[in-house]
Amino acid sequence: MNTPHGTPRIMLAHGGGGQLTDELLRQCIMPRLDNAVLNQLLDSAILPDGQGGRLAMTIDSFVVQPLEFPGGNIGDLAVAGTVNDLAVCGATPLGIALSLVLCEGLPIPVLERVLDAVAATARKAGVTVVTGDTKVVGHGQADGIFITTAGVGRIPAGLILSPTQVQPGDMLIINGPLGEHGLAVMLAREMPELITPVKSDVAPLNSLINAALAAAPGQIRFMRDPTRGGLAGLCADLATHSGYRVVLDETHIPLRPEARHAADLLGLDPLEIANEGKVVVVVAPAAHDRVLQAMRAHPLAESAVTIGHIGELRDGLCEIRTTIGGRRIVAKPYGEQLPRIC
Amino acid sequence: MNTPHGTPRIMLAHGGGGQLTDELLRQCIMPRLDNAVLNQLLDSAILPDGQGGRLAMTIDSFVVQPLEFPGGNIGDLAVAGTVNDLAVCGATPLGIALSLVLCEGLPIPVLERVLDAVAATARKAGVTVVTGDTKVVGHGQADGIFITTAGVGRIPAGLILSPTQVQPGDMLIINGPLGEHGLAVMLAREMPELITPVKSDVAPLNSLINAALAAAPGQIRFMRDPTRGGLAGLCADLATHSGYRVVLDETHIPLRPEARHAADLLGLDPLEIANEGKVVVVVAPAAHDRVLQAMRAHPLAESAVTIGHIGELRDGLCEIRTTIGGRRIVAKPYGEQLPRIC
Repeated sequence: MNTPHGTPRIMLAHGGGGQLTDELLRQCIMPRLDNAVLNQLLDSAILPDGQGGRLAMTIDSFVVQPLEFPGGNIGDLAVAGTVNDLAVCGATPLGIALSLVLCEGLPIPVLERVLDAVAATARKAGVTVVTGDTKVVGHGQADGIFITTAGVGRIPAGLILSPTQVQPGDMLIINGPLGEHGLAVMLAREMPELITPVKSDVAPLNSLINAALAAAPGQIRFMRDPTRGGLAGLCADLATHSGYRVVLDETHIPLRPEARHAADLLGLDPLEIANEGKVVVVVAPAAHDRVLQAMRAHPLAESAVTIGHIGELRDGLCEIRTTIGGRRIVAKPYGEQLPRIC
Repeated sequence: MNTPHGTPRIMLAHGGGGQLTDELLRQCIMPRLDNAVLNQLLDSAILPDGQGGRLAMTIDSFVVQPLEFPGGNIGDLAVAGTVNDLAVCGATPLGIALSLVLCEGLPIPVLERVLDAVAATARKAGVTVVTGDTKVVGHGQADGIFITTAGVGRIPAGLILSPTQVQPGDMLIINGPLGEHGLAVMLAREMPELITPVKSDVAPLNSLINAALAAAPGQIRFMRDPTRGGLAGLCADLATHSGYRVVLDETHIPLRPEARHAADLLGLDPLEIANEGKVVVVVAPAAHDRVLQAMRAHPLAESAVTIGHIGELRDGLCEIRTTIGGRRIVAKPYGEQLPRIC
């Protein structure tokens, strides 16, 4: 956060979900808001419900540009993102809250399409938007629409999903090919004239996650959706917080040819690109086949595949075994590879 | 929402909490997100907690300009606003979620002062920020800082606070003088060179509200904080949703001389100006004295006063009896009297 001269200022990269975001959190935010729940830094906070049970609570702001992109719009993202943050913590949504900051001059038909997407995604996920707020700011003071969604859900008694549950030998499964959300948004923004089959994967994952949990009660250790920071950020965090080495096998990481092509075109590493309809499931080896099978039976995971495992080494690093037989350490992305991707 | 020519567009007034906000909600938002909980349009949604109890959930975005003003900053507002929305529904907060949209170039010391205020107000209210999110947008794409806060709280068994509980003869109490938040922000923005004693009243009201509820169990019918739309908006809504006439007595409505002066200077009606530390309590007549006494014993309500009552007429209107003995109907403010006040 130090800049060479004068007052330190916020940079785009502080919002990228990478190392600079961590630094802002660690240096500026956490010391002020310090508490045991916040310190866990999970996708959702886990709270006592006041009557002996547990609730999950999550919040995310969406600032994607353009507002509409192949495969969805900011309204799909806002609902799916919140549903997925609850679902990876094992929580069943009780309600979603949605707040809009609109820019003066926004065409109302655009707002209507975004709200249609909110409604459709909520219906798909079986969740309800129970409360909301709307603010309007002057022309040029915001950028179309910002949406913030919060969600609250109930965690079943006894269910614990956490990096600290992870054991050597556990397997990592992903439900499909990587990078398509970030690539679809970047192509729509940077090369709007390009015709490409790459579409955002945005989708609510709660029914898929429920199917995986039901297939192997007590055998899933941890789940997370590789959004900002991509699979690289997820696995680097998992290594740090579990304390074990996470081993990825590059030959098994699924990537559609058109996504690989688009990533090459944009000079991006597919491992670092945000997804909005993917989940990494860490499962005990004994239950691996059952969970993989259950996932493949779901329309959002027909191409689910095992991409790595938890190693014995207790060094908290993530390693990838490359297609040409090499090995390298996967670092958490530093800053903002892809600004305003969600 | 119809404009004379071309595509209908969002106007600043759609965010003012007045009739135009209602129109946007009714025409554009509610038909798409229609459900029983959202349709109640209370400050917080009331949800089944999945185990036989009830939760309250609320969300608000804060876009105030300037970020810092006499009496507080956007961080105070974001926490107090959410705590107050839960408290007026009788809910005890379980956790607060806070999401930041920061503008590239924002001086980090400003962010630190805002976070200090978040922390101090949370401490004052006895609540915890359990989860959050941070996004950064490019210079000129947002305006300093937008904060969205969501809150979840537990509603005690049996407690029902709603406009539908209100009965003729019930009394309206307010905890102190009106208009100071909106006036402090407007003066800071429009006349920054002016030296004035007007300061925002921003404060978390949960301990005051708990004291009022404890003084007369089952006797408080409804509570609400007069934020956007002011006392006029609150009472017009209460009349509409209770179906009774709400009668205000202008001679009893508290207003500090400096606030009256500032409102005159800015050409504003104090009844329509946003407050951030005020609550209107509707209480059964038998418990009125006890509740008023309990409130006055609290530092945030030393000048609490009775400002009106619920009349017999079933016309759903709000009437004010003026200082010179006249009567007029109080309408909900139309649009955005005060843009970006919270």
